[in-house]
Amino acid sequence: MEGRGKAIIDGVEGNYGRDELAMKKPPAGGGSCELVLRFLGFVLTLAAAIVVGTDKQTTIVPIKVVDSLPPLNVAVSAKWHYLSAFVYFLVANAIACTYGAISMLLTLLNRGKSKVFWGTLITIFDALMVALLFSGNGAATAIGVLGYQGNSHVRWKKVCNVFDKYCHQVAASIILSQLGSLVFLLLVVLLPILRSRRRS
Amino acid sequence: MEGRGKAIIDGVEGNYGRDELAMKKPPAGGGSCELVLRFLGFVLTLAAAIVVGTDKQTTIVPIKVVDSLPPLNVAVSAKWHYLSAFVYFLVANAIACTYGAISMLLTLLNRGKSKVFWGTLITIFDALMVALLFSGNGAATAIGVLGYQGNSHVRWKKVCNVFDKYCHQVAASIILSQLGSLVFLLLVVLLPILRSRRRS
Repeated sequence: MEGRGKAIIDGVEGNYGRDELAMKKPPAGGGSCELVLRFLGFVLTLAAAIVVGTDKQTTIVPIKVVDSLPPLNVAVSAKWHYLSAFVYFLVANAIACTYGAISMLLTLLNRGKSKVFWGTLITIFDALMVALLFSGNGAATAIGVLGYQGNSHVRWKKVCNVFDKYCHQVAASIILSQLGSLVFLLLVVLLPILRSRRRS
Repeated sequence: MEGRGKAIIDGVEGNYGRDELAMKKPPAGGGSCELVLRFLGFVLTLAAAIVVGTDKQTTIVPIKVVDSLPPLNVAVSAKWHYLSAFVYFLVANAIACTYGAISMLLTLLNRGKSKVFWGTLITIFDALMVALLFSGNGAATAIGVLGYQGNSHVRWKKVCNVFDKYCHQVAASIILSQLGSLVFLLLVVLLPILRSRRRS
């Protein structure tokens, strides 16, 4: 038995070594897919943070003080930091975009290496980014809906009829952030599958 | 070599079989931990949905119509479905609680079996629950903060000084849902680790 095994191993020793190396090396597709997703997550959250962070609109509103006099034109401004939900939304996207850049760099440096600790750590942080981004999106969307529709029950009037550009910019930012969140969600879901494929 | 191996195998054949079975069976700790977490997720999201779904308060507010007359006492109500963010929050918790119950049952039925497809599917749904719950929490918290503090820039007045019980119930529900979300986040992060331990 020992002799047969030895003979087989000796006979294909060179090929066996190459095959073993090829199996240990992760397939290029999986690693590239992870890198592309991390790059997308970084770009989308960065864009969302910039779009909401530069959101500002000043408009002239006619206000009637006395019925007998013509309305007064008053300049009113809307800035992104006036609503705490938008501040949270920007901070969440800034954190996610910073993490996206760092994780992209670390993935590039660790390419081809199979580190269990590194894999676990990055899955934890990916999941935290999903939680952070989705809560930020939820908060910004809830305030956005209020701005568009108002709420008669609590007497919160809509503001998007006055600050249209401001609201459109918030909506664009929410869409970008939502796409970024989906990318991080994909990373959480796909990474364990990609890693198990690399191992097998 | 063959003889030595055969002798050893023959000598401990009975014990070897039992050990092999014990190795294939997952350790009780990992499976129980998953079940406890799923139960916690189910209970917390169910409690959050019930607490917000039963939130209703009617209070008497004195309104002065004419300065020379005493104020009129008007009954005003606050219900959970008056704000779309709370409706979304309740639906998110109801979905997560239903999923928690189903996944708990399926985990119990699949206990001891190592199914890759089932593991992948449940990780995807766990991650979706994290996204859903955190966006619901973000939306409810954003509206809750507005209710407590109001916002002078957009002239949205605070309402929690009038509807105190209503706001406290919303706050309790958000805390319960936040705990439930953390449980699902733990499942997403811990399950791959628990599963890889079971396999090794």
